[in-house]
Amino acid sequence: MVYSPGSGDDPIGELVALLARLPSIGERTATRLAFHVLGGDAEYARALGESLSTVHERVLECIHCGNYGAEEVCRICADPRREERALCVVARVPDLVAIERSGTFRGRYHVLHRLLAPLDGVGPEDLPLDKLVERAKADPVEEIIVATPLSVEGEATALYVAEVLGEAGVRVTRIASGVPHGGELEFTDQVTLGRALEGRKDI
Amino acid sequence: MVYSPGSGDDPIGELVALLARLPSIGERTATRLAFHVLGGDAEYARALGESLSTVHERVLECIHCGNYGAEEVCRICADPRREERALCVVARVPDLVAIERSGTFRGRYHVLHRLLAPLDGVGPEDLPLDKLVERAKADPVEEIIVATPLSVEGEATALYVAEVLGEAGVRVTRIASGVPHGGELEFTDQVTLGRALEGRKDI
Repeated sequence: MVYSPGSGDDPIGELVALLARLPSIGERTATRLAFHVLGGDAEYARALGESLSTVHERVLECIHCGNYGAEEVCRICADPRREERALCVVARVPDLVAIERSGTFRGRYHVLHRLLAPLDGVGPEDLPLDKLVERAKADPVEEIIVATPLSVEGEATALYVAEVLGEAGVRVTRIASGVPHGGELEFTDQVTLGRALEGRKDI
Repeated sequence: MVYSPGSGDDPIGELVALLARLPSIGERTATRLAFHVLGGDAEYARALGESLSTVHERVLECIHCGNYGAEEVCRICADPRREERALCVVARVPDLVAIERSGTFRGRYHVLHRLLAPLDGVGPEDLPLDKLVERAKADPVEEIIVATPLSVEGEATALYVAEVLGEAGVRVTRIASGVPHGGELEFTDQVTLGRALEGRKDI
């Protein structure tokens, strides 16, 4: 069931149209969500609305690494227990969160918030690398791990980051690419298999 | 990737928790939506937030039929072209919208906003039938079509509505139950097949 906005003042139609702009929320789901909110607690609707309205003001980008947080300096940059020898470069904050949840990295991060994408008008000059170069030189940083996605844009960005950081005299590494945990070789694509073979290790 | 709210002031965690209370939105999707909103246009976030915050105040229940609208009297009750001989009783506004979209009913509606559900504490006295009885008696209404769902609660409510309206001296009908359009008999459940046979018509 899809709600068709009528003419004139139509608060439900307006809400449906706004909800339907969220990723993977079609008009059908947006309609269902709108009626759910309307049929439910007004206090909840206000809390969610307030949270959405103010999230851009309340969430700050860390002045050191670009991570999101409620303070000027994010929790990770402010934590004195983090290792200072390694920086992990990620494209987006959700990637940082995923690495944090893996529990396998104890250093700090650098969030680019974008990838090289010449077709979308994002060129090398649009990547915020000045601060990364500065951190790579000034801090007791020994290694920069580039954890951008294993996509065309992610790989291009990784190569460019390595090129720029080459001058900083720091070791630049790339996360491994291969068959994922639990992955069946039979159903693994050619590129991944090629990389898995190329990246083989002694056992 | 699921965002775990940290301690203290955590606007992203708060937004994720609120979004995850929406139906069929799990923590994973809520996290993705929150980061999408955060990575996008602040103007959009404010518009959506404002729309949600105010939807309960801006949407009114029609004083005649209970339908949602921006005015005291809904678009359908205010439309003089609607047939006055038939009222269609529905459980929820989305059901009304679905019937409207079918284009097969030109009368007006009555929205109950709930169904009999003794286990959830909704008894006969909680159904808003006083106004329906009044409309059935006062208007030039000849027929009440009960279009509550074909579920246990919907059927029980339909029977109760018919009982109450029996005293109003009006014809009360129930929407047909049977094999849906395009439905394969092979994959149709027993109850539906039984109803389809029982409700058979001359051709």
